[in-house]
Amino acid sequence: MPDQTAYAPTERTVPTRGRKRASYDRALVHSILDEAYVCHLGFVRDGAPVVLPTLYGRVGERLYVHGSTGSRPLRMAGQTDPGLPVCLTVTHVDGLVLARSAFHHSINYRSVVVHGVAHQVTDPEELRTALDALVDHVVPGRAADSRPANAKELAATAVLRLDLEEVSAKVRTGGPNDEPEDLALPHWAGVVPVRKGYDALIPSDDLDGSVQVPAYLFGL
Amino acid sequence: MPDQTAYAPTERTVPTRGRKRASYDRALVHSILDEAYVCHLGFVRDGAPVVLPTLYGRVGERLYVHGSTGSRPLRMAGQTDPGLPVCLTVTHVDGLVLARSAFHHSINYRSVVVHGVAHQVTDPEELRTALDALVDHVVPGRAADSRPANAKELAATAVLRLDLEEVSAKVRTGGPNDEPEDLALPHWAGVVPVRKGYDALIPSDDLDGSVQVPAYLFGL
Repeated sequence: MPDQTAYAPTERTVPTRGRKRASYDRALVHSILDEAYVCHLGFVRDGAPVVLPTLYGRVGERLYVHGSTGSRPLRMAGQTDPGLPVCLTVTHVDGLVLARSAFHHSINYRSVVVHGVAHQVTDPEELRTALDALVDHVVPGRAADSRPANAKELAATAVLRLDLEEVSAKVRTGGPNDEPEDLALPHWAGVVPVRKGYDALIPSDDLDGSVQVPAYLFGL
Repeated sequence: MPDQTAYAPTERTVPTRGRKRASYDRALVHSILDEAYVCHLGFVRDGAPVVLPTLYGRVGERLYVHGSTGSRPLRMAGQTDPGLPVCLTVTHVDGLVLARSAFHHSINYRSVVVHGVAHQVTDPEELRTALDALVDHVVPGRAADSRPANAKELAATAVLRLDLEEVSAKVRTGGPNDEPEDLALPHWAGVVPVRKGYDALIPSDDLDGSVQVPAYLFGL
């Protein structure tokens, strides 16, 4: 039975550097994944790496990655019998770390790297679940407040499934790690916190004035 | 003589989908690259894709990607005689696009994808230039206001160079593209603008109180 609280480290998920920043905690991994809007999906095409920003959603220990039936990774996953080997990475930048020395400048961040084999979702019920997860990932609660996909739209949508098995998180927090001999240098040192913000909603030009702003948008 | 305003499209940089969103404009590509803090660097290891968040900087038509001499991509670039094939991707999320239909939900974004072969920087002068670019990429003007790397630090730092040659940008803007028959549905539709914000500076615990906050931090 798998560990309920942590992913098992593998050769690929133990970093060669910065090992003390690595984590395999499921709750941490989930929180990092759930907070981002896009992932960066890597796959190999003609022997060369390709990295594309992609929408995704999570259902438990499973990620769903959005595509259209014409996109390259989706076609490759469909054509490749055992699935498409991928690496899916999500990163939040939390702060700019300014040290007295150029060398110790850094970024506070939280990232998740998922290795695995992606498979195209073919079961209609799972496809609907995946599409709901993709919409709710953008705005939680939104899937129930939109018109569900019809048969034509479902046929035009392709979704890849990637199980969370070979997974690690990496987190840097805190201030700069300057050398003791640099502490008296006259350079400001510390952290510039970076955060995600939202500006005022922009309603569609064709939105009926009687439609109210839904409550779930106030929680962003 | 290469086009001074645009990159030449290649088979890899012409998307199979959403072609009208693609751009090869150098100024647009530069602006997207310069605004982000991390890129996602993809490479192939043992036949499988790997995508890691990485600091980078730009000097003209050249990107410098930060690493340490012990990190995997750096070691691979050093070991691979003709360099390391990489795909470097940068993405900004500018807005959440809420449509009446689940199918038409989307994200407003700006992304750049660079394909190429990365080479380890070995020339000491170029390495210093690259390190300055990496620091100034985090906070413009900061390299000149920090202690430069010493010989030991230079030896511990490895930097990959990636020329901007096979490059494309992709941009989505504007509101949702709902179907005409969905416009009367009672779901709010429009865009939630997302932006980068900064919180109050956190000075290092060991910062001398006489050190002032530098002017370049007020411009963030």
